Amino acid sequence: MNNIPSVFWLVPVASLVSLGMALYFYLQMKKAEEGTPRMQEIAEHVRKGAMAYLKQQYKVVTIVFVVLAIIFSIMAYGFQLQNPWVPFAFLTGGLFSGLAGFFGMKTATHASARTANAARQSLDAGLKVAFRSGAVMGLTVVGLGLLDIAIWFVILNAAGVESLITITTTMLTFGMGASTQALFARVGGGIYTKAADVGADIVGKVEADIPEDDPRNPATIADNVGDNVGDVAGMGADLYESYCGSILSTAALGATAYAFCPETQLKYVIAPMIIAAVGIFLSLIGIYLVRTKEGATMKELLHSLGLGTNVSAGLIAVATFAILYLLGIENWLYISFSVIVGLLAGVIIGQATEYYTSHSYKPTQEISAASQTGAATVIIKGVGTGMISTMIPVVTISVAIMLSYLCANGFTMDVNAEALSKGLYGVGIAAVGMLSTLGITLATDAYGPIADNAGGNAEMSELGEEVRKRTDALDALGNTTAATGKGFAIGSAALTALALLASYIEEIKEAVARLANEGDAHMAEVLTKIQDIPAFMDYFQVNLMNPKVIVGVFIGAMAAFLFSGITMGAVGRAAEDMVKEVRRQFREIAGILEGKATPDYGRCVEISTRSAQREMIFPSLLAIIIPIVVGLILGVAGVLGLLVGGLAGGFTLAIFMSNAGGAWDNAKKMVEEGNFGGKGSECHKATVVGDTVGDPFKDTSGPSLNILIKLMSMVSIVMAGLTVAFI
Amino acid sequence: MNNIPSVFWLVPVASLVSLGMALYFYLQMKKAEEGTPRMQEIAEHVRKGAMAYLKQQYKVVTIVFVVLAIIFSIMAYGFQLQNPWVPFAFLTGGLFSGLAGFFGMKTATHASARTANAARQSLDAGLKVAFRSGAVMGLTVVGLGLLDIAIWFVILNAAGVESLITITTTMLTFGMGASTQALFARVGGGIYTKAADVGADIVGKVEADIPEDDPRNPATIADNVGDNVGDVAGMGADLYESYCGSILSTAALGATAYAFCPETQLKYVIAPMIIAAVGIFLSLIGIYLVRTKEGATMKELLHSLGLGTNVSAGLIAVATFAILYLLGIENWLYISFSVIVGLLAGVIIGQATEYYTSHSYKPTQEISAASQTGAATVIIKGVGTGMISTMIPVVTISVAIMLSYLCANGFTMDVNAEALSKGLYGVGIAAVGMLSTLGITLATDAYGPIADNAGGNAEMSELGEEVRKRTDALDALGNTTAATGKGFAIGSAALTALALLASYIEEIKEAVARLANEGDAHMAEVLTKIQDIPAFMDYFQVNLMNPKVIVGVFIGAMAAFLFSGITMGAVGRAAEDMVKEVRRQFREIAGILEGKATPDYGRCVEISTRSAQREMIFPSLLAIIIPIVVGLILGVAGVLGLLVGGLAGGFTLAIFMSNAGGAWDNAKKMVEEGNFGGKGSECHKATVVGDTVGDPFKDTSGPSLNILIKLMSMVSIVMAGLTVAFI
Repeated sequence: MNNIPSVFWLVPVASLVSLGMALYFYLQMKKAEEGTPRMQEIAEHVRKGAMAYLKQQYKVVTIVFVVLAIIFSIMAYGFQLQNPWVPFAFLTGGLFSGLAGFFGMKTATHASARTANAARQSLDAGLKVAFRSGAVMGLTVVGLGLLDIAIWFVILNAAGVESLITITTTMLTFGMGASTQALFARVGGGIYTKAADVGADIVGKVEADIPEDDPRNPATIADNVGDNVGDVAGMGADLYESYCGSILSTAALGATAYAFCPETQLKYVIAPMIIAAVGIFLSLIGIYLVRTKEGATMKELLHSLGLGTNVSAGLIAVATFAILYLLGIENWLYISFSVIVGLLAGVIIGQATEYYTSHSYKPTQEISAASQTGAATVIIKGVGTGMISTMIPVVTISVAIMLSYLCANGFTMDVNAEALSKGLYGVGIAAVGMLSTLGITLATDAYGPIADNAGGNAEMSELGEEVRKRTDALDALGNTTAATGKGFAIGSAALTALALLASYIEEIKEAVARLANEGDAHMAEVLTKIQDIPAFMDYFQVNLMNPKVIVGVFIGAMAAFLFSGITMGAVGRAAEDMVKEVRRQFREIAGILEGKATPDYGRCVEISTRSAQREMIFPSLLAIIIPIVVGLILGVAGVLGLLVGGLAGGFTLAIFMSNAGGAWDNAKKMVEEGNFGGKGSECHKATVVGDTVGDPFKDTSGPSLNILIKLMSMVSIVMAGLTVAFI
Repeated sequence: MNNIPSVFWLVPVASLVSLGMALYFYLQMKKAEEGTPRMQEIAEHVRKGAMAYLKQQYKVVTIVFVVLAIIFSIMAYGFQLQNPWVPFAFLTGGLFSGLAGFFGMKTATHASARTANAARQSLDAGLKVAFRSGAVMGLTVVGLGLLDIAIWFVILNAAGVESLITITTTMLTFGMGASTQALFARVGGGIYTKAADVGADIVGKVEADIPEDDPRNPATIADNVGDNVGDVAGMGADLYESYCGSILSTAALGATAYAFCPETQLKYVIAPMIIAAVGIFLSLIGIYLVRTKEGATMKELLHSLGLGTNVSAGLIAVATFAILYLLGIENWLYISFSVIVGLLAGVIIGQATEYYTSHSYKPTQEISAASQTGAATVIIKGVGTGMISTMIPVVTISVAIMLSYLCANGFTMDVNAEALSKGLYGVGIAAVGMLSTLGITLATDAYGPIADNAGGNAEMSELGEEVRKRTDALDALGNTTAATGKGFAIGSAALTALALLASYIEEIKEAVARLANEGDAHMAEVLTKIQDIPAFMDYFQVNLMNPKVIVGVFIGAMAAFLFSGITMGAVGRAAEDMVKEVRRQFREIAGILEGKATPDYGRCVEISTRSAQREMIFPSLLAIIIPIVVGLILGVAGVLGLLVGGLAGGFTLAIFMSNAGGAWDNAKKMVEEGNFGGKGSECHKATVVGDTVGDPFKDTSGPSLNILIKLMSMVSIVMAGLTVAFI
């Protein structure tokens, strides 16, 4: 058993503190009043719809998990193609990721009416309820993440697993559980929310000319439920996966890079965990800094939120030097620079996202202006802007990869065996740096949908212009802060996926070693030839002229498009069902448009639920099947090609889709603020078309791609044994 | 001097026959009547506009060519970073590519009124004029292509260049000239035509509710000019480049793979040229088979065109075995299979394109049906369909790469030095197979815009319902046959780009050898370490874990998005200018909508010309600059990453954009045929939005990506010397 150093216990402590604070904020929020009976009734509707959906979702996902766990068990126990811990690690990853989504959603559905009610008093009161509720989500995600990591690290050590390489790669398989859960949550939730949103917008805003969240619209409850199941539960599961993935892949890289000396190795393995643990405390400081005085302006609100995240980020940058120094890490100074590179890259991508999607800047303003020549030019401009907006993030990530690699290698760009291991550790820990303050960045992210729902509640409860204005201000604020959050999420996904490539190589080696240990002479010979990364690359001919590699890259890029195409199609189909239902209700239920009859909200909730469940299975399974098939046909070289192609293609496509969607959303908001004719004008209708198209771009397909990239890597890692069996 | 075998002279003969037949068809077409004075007047307008544009375009392009030629001369003569033939080869490539576009356009602008006039007699007469005129284009492109190849092959041999490797890689540089010309033609022409088309549609169809090509629309002449400069001149330059690129890269691969025996080597070098030469004769047979009886139905027309292309393709498949056998190529049987793999892949991609874009099939029908829920769902469905449609082409190309590699290697999948060279030759010759019948496939492709323009002429000359119906039938036919043509173009681009990777490696070796010859000791040492592909890959560490390679792949994928985003944005901007102008004319010129006043067509032509010229520079230069910068910063490993990333990302993006655009176009046509309310209904308006968005997708950004992919490779090859200087 490895001698777990006492500093490691900071990890479970931070985890418990995080969960404790989440509970405290939750109870505080619950103490607040939920408002008028009408408000409570609507909140109850949304809550019930959301819980019903989540129950249904978890049922389906449980079946998938059970089937996969059985397959893994057969592989592990029947054929020794995996180590025996894999099925269990996989299941806990899925469970914890699901819990993160569940708690987040429970909080959000309780918080929205309370936020609306608090907004009746003041903007400040509204902000506090919404933001603290968002913090519940942020702290739950990081708390559960570190808890799962700490528990497994202790268990595997206590069980007498000697090799830190085995321990860390085993722990990675709970990353696969988390990714699988996250993908289902993002895809299912994304389809649900956008089917409802698109359906509600098309019939409500464009055809019947009634405002957003109007209680006369039958799809409005489904729309609000959707914000919770898509943006909250989906995002929670997603970022749980990102958080754990970055820490675990970095730990695995540390184990490999410093395998020559067990003591040093252990330090590098726990370093990312400690940085994450300290990040939790610093996030808490940031959360407490977010407060406004009465009657604060929008700018002051933004400043207040920004202060919290920036202080946390600044503190972790400084703390990293201390942590790595105190841990006794030899090249602590260089590695710290890698962490800072990651933090900076996250900030730059966030800023770029804001530039391309906020209507304070030219690109979105131009999309808005294009509405004067109709919907078609709005779409053309938006697509163009989205595509151009891929440049800064890709260049930033490219520079971040080079710099974090460079720093971790003592400022040399060597690519020999040792340099590769050390350099990749630098890339991994840059991702950890980006996500270390997730406690607060996720709080500012999750706060958005809560404010959005509060607005919905205010509208449906007819609380009046003033309150709606306040919730709108909170919502707009959420859109801006979400941009930064997205930068961190997308950026870290790319860096983590890169680190996972190295883990794949390690896992292939582990699998070969297992078979060699059982007396397979061929594998024993192979093992001698793949000891370090260059040798491995040479043996499997993972070079760019190998047709298998090139075909892998092709399939990887295509997989991203195919996956997005299927999810876009799913939203299209589901939205059409919704539109037909809303039109039917407008037609058949007399007096509905005059507000004299209550629409059948339940029917719309049902349609969204059924569509989402039906449509989420195929694309999610595709993400699991593609890497397995490529592994069987094209072998190790093909899989690495697939992962690199999927990473580059998926990352670029994800940014294109997210930013185009965000820009269309805000271009519409700009018109609604009174530009180009304002609400109800032809220009408004043109931008609503853009916004509607952008909905699945930014909330279904785009964010799912982040998970797709990592899930494909995780599947390849877990299935490495199967690929090896066919070498 | 190499002993040029007598069979080689088939190449210039085929070239001259091709050009002779093109002239014959051209003169035949010119003999036909151009119709009423009104028809002649309109044709003259279009002709003048098109020629004025082309003159302007060639002026700008000439400047770019002169600057690049000077740079190349300095590199070649000042620093020995290139061989002395490069600047001249580059210039001739550009010149011939430009000529191909020019002759094609000259023919098309003379043919459209004549086609409309012939359609006044019968459908058959119209088809004959249009198709024979398309054949002028097809035969000119292949004739000029082989002429350039033959001339340079003779010159370089006559000049005493001994090494076939040097000869073939030098000839590749005229590929760069052709690519550069083609990119400008596609981008400039694409922006021109779509600015006019989008502008005309938005104001004409959607706002003023007047039909397409209505003479009351001020943008209508510009729209018709656009069809010529974009679809004809652009396509001509584009396919000239594809045709030469595939032949030359395969020849270069043959020179490398069989360098051990000069006699064998020569056979492999001229094999692709001979296949192409024979393909010309077989294309001519196909062209003569296209004839219909009086009163033929649409199906019979399609059958007739299909018969021509299929017979040509079938004959070349058979002929290939004979050619390679008679050439005395040792593994003629295997290599012939590679050619057939290429042909089949082209057919499959074409069929898939038709399935996803024709309204005879479900995907496009569903997009059409989505119009019932508005423009937004039309766009969502179209984007989804386009993305899903990437699957079959990517899988087909992947299988084609593997199979053609496999066949050329005697059915083994080895990736050692010898196998790689031979296998890649197989991939290259598969592309040659795809394009060998370009004479006829391009004829069916170029026929489309001619028919389209004939329709425009008929509408503007008010020739009546019957004639317009016939030209519409011809146009619809063109859309279907164009799908097959696109399959060949896109598929061959991917295979050629792959072959160019190998040429890049060869050129780097040549550059190193040049410097070593001049006494550079370091280069002499490097040269010994990069003798074959695996050694080269090893020395420059072109494996997938090298961060430089990964960053290269990222940048490559991003470059495709960035390029498309810029061209989309350019169309958006140019279209807005056009819309404003058309609206101004409707507002300010009294009686224009009643047909009492003539619109100011010239002003719209001018706007398109100016916008296209202004907007084409930046994206085109980008394609040249990116690979140079990546080469200087990331070296050989980064460039290869860039090219593979650009290839995979660009290929997938190109298919997505082309197919989504095609599907939207036909979804609109389906509504216009009377479905979902027919012309003028809300559904029609929704599909017009889709069609308008699809215009730049399918005619500007999508097809330009094919060239971008290859131009980036060509630039890397030509600039190899510069990269090497910094090793």
